[in-house]
Amino acid sequence: MPVMTAEMLEAFNREQFPQIDHMGLKVDHVDDTSIRVSMSVQDMHLRPGGTVSGPTMMQLADAAMYLLLLAQIGPVALAVTTNLNINFLRKPEPGGMYAEGRLLKLGKTLAIGEFSLYSEGLEDPVAHVTTTYSIPPKRDGQTGV
Amino acid sequence: MPVMTAEMLEAFNREQFPQIDHMGLKVDHVDDTSIRVSMSVQDMHLRPGGTVSGPTMMQLADAAMYLLLLAQIGPVALAVTTNLNINFLRKPEPGGMYAEGRLLKLGKTLAIGEFSLYSEGLEDPVAHVTTTYSIPPKRDGQTGV
Amino acid sequence: MPVMTAEMLEAFNREQFPQIDHMGLKVDHVDDTSIRVSMSVQDMHLRPGGTVSGPTMMQLADAAMYLLLLAQIGPVALAVTTNLNINFLRKPEPGGMYAEGRLLKLGKTLAIGEFSLYSEGLEDPVAHVTTTYSIPPKRDGQTGV
Amino acid sequence: MPVMTAEMLEAFNREQFPQIDHMGLKVDHVDDTSIRVSMSVQDMHLRPGGTVSGPTMMQLADAAMYLLLLAQIGPVALAVTTNLNINFLRKPEPGGMYAEGRLLKLGKTLAIGEFSLYSEGLEDPVAHVTTTYSIPPKRDGQTGV
Repeated sequence: MPVMTAEMLEAFNREQFPQIDHMGLKVDHVDDTSIRVSMSVQDMHLRPGGTVSGPTMMQLADAAMYLLLLAQIGPVALAVTTNLNINFLRKPEPGGMYAEGRLLKLGKTLAIGEFSLYSEGLEDPVAHVTTTYSIPPKRDGQTGV
Repeated sequence: MPVMTAEMLEAFNREQFPQIDHMGLKVDHVDDTSIRVSMSVQDMHLRPGGTVSGPTMMQLADAAMYLLLLAQIGPVALAVTTNLNINFLRKPEPGGMYAEGRLLKLGKTLAIGEFSLYSEGLEDPVAHVTTTYSIPPKRDGQTGV
Repeated sequence: MPVMTAEMLEAFNREQFPQIDHMGLKVDHVDDTSIRVSMSVQDMHLRPGGTVSGPTMMQLADAAMYLLLLAQIGPVALAVTTNLNINFLRKPEPGGMYAEGRLLKLGKTLAIGEFSLYSEGLEDPVAHVTTTYSIPPKRDGQTGV
Repeated sequence: MPVMTAEMLEAFNREQFPQIDHMGLKVDHVDDTSIRVSMSVQDMHLRPGGTVSGPTMMQLADAAMYLLLLAQIGPVALAVTTNLNINFLRKPEPGGMYAEGRLLKLGKTLAIGEFSLYSEGLEDPVAHVTTTYSIPPKRDGQTGV
């Protein structure tokens, strides 16, 4: 069982990251190893031709991994992205998007996840992301983080 | 339906790539979008501590993607790897390994695939790979490359 | 000699991508193989602790590669990112940032570039990016795609 | 000043990794932040058309990063690759190859490096690699690794 629920994750995200309120992130599902996060696409996320921008997709995947990780280790630790690799597969539609992903590894110092990004109305994924977070050691003298 | 069967892929591989006979690659399964390829691990593939070397795992994933692509487009085209990204997740056991993967995209000029690598006897994957192949244009004047 | 100057690139960018006017991108230098692009960091680009967000850095690198590519092939072709890999190295300062990069390859269908991202006042790079763009075939019947 | 010289690195490599003696790795240069490692290409490293195989290039880059890291932290620590991203740029010649690279970051738990791979006789690089090593904590109670 994750230590943070979808509601807790959304509340934490709103409070800590007001700069990305424009994404309207919603945690549709979260469990011990996987998550689904959806966003509402605004004009500011679009590019010529009405397609969603690449950086918007990277941000969605990065946020989804962060929330998936926090769901497991709680809101205390200050985890940071160390690597993100994205392959763009197809042009997204201008409508909503969501990311579905899972933990490939949750280690003491590194967490690695894999995500597929979908555009509402398209069956095939529009992008695929693998990303690594560094998990800092606990600060209160506890071992084994 | 793929245009090459598992048997055709193995025969083509043996003939074209005698340098990797040492891997004993077997195509356990192949269909329109996915493949499973197993290898037999030899001493030459190991590193101190009895673990399978990283380059061996990269080679397994690269070969699996190549075979998955050939199964779709046939043995004629000279496809080449343009990008490979691998995350190492856990130490493999010294026994056999296999790669399971799928096409994320099969376009006219690029094919992108995703693979999980498994060590016999371990439930969780030991590595995860995404890789891109460039598909050369057809040579006989046909369009639609 | 590039076919577009720094001024042409900035004007093209402002016209085509009004959604990223907030970055205030400036082409400090461009030549046949390399570019330097700076941005002004706004509050919207920051995260808790005053650091520049990861997606902001990805966007800077992606834009720099796009401009470097356009400088070589001109504003006509509709090039799109197919892969981006970023390693985050250090926490940026909240001040300005710039990207310095170069073409590793400019082929007929693929262009690959490498970029280091710098935070004003820090000597070492804060992130490193490699990225691939797909260059679409020419549309007017010309060969040499 | 690195804590291991080119000679020490070559001796350590020969002793610990006899499985890659076939590469004939030589440390042409090493300093605090950069390294150059050359290999002699054998028939077993080639593919149809006389080109050096992709996995051989990945192995060269991986070994070069490992040696560059050991040169800084010494032969004790058991560092392991966690991520490797390679872009293939051009077909290598069948002759010798070398890797030139540098540390982008040498942290307490992660080291990140960037490498260009060259084929003897070609001016432009044939491949580009970024890779991350995980550095395990010291075991003797020392802090600050």
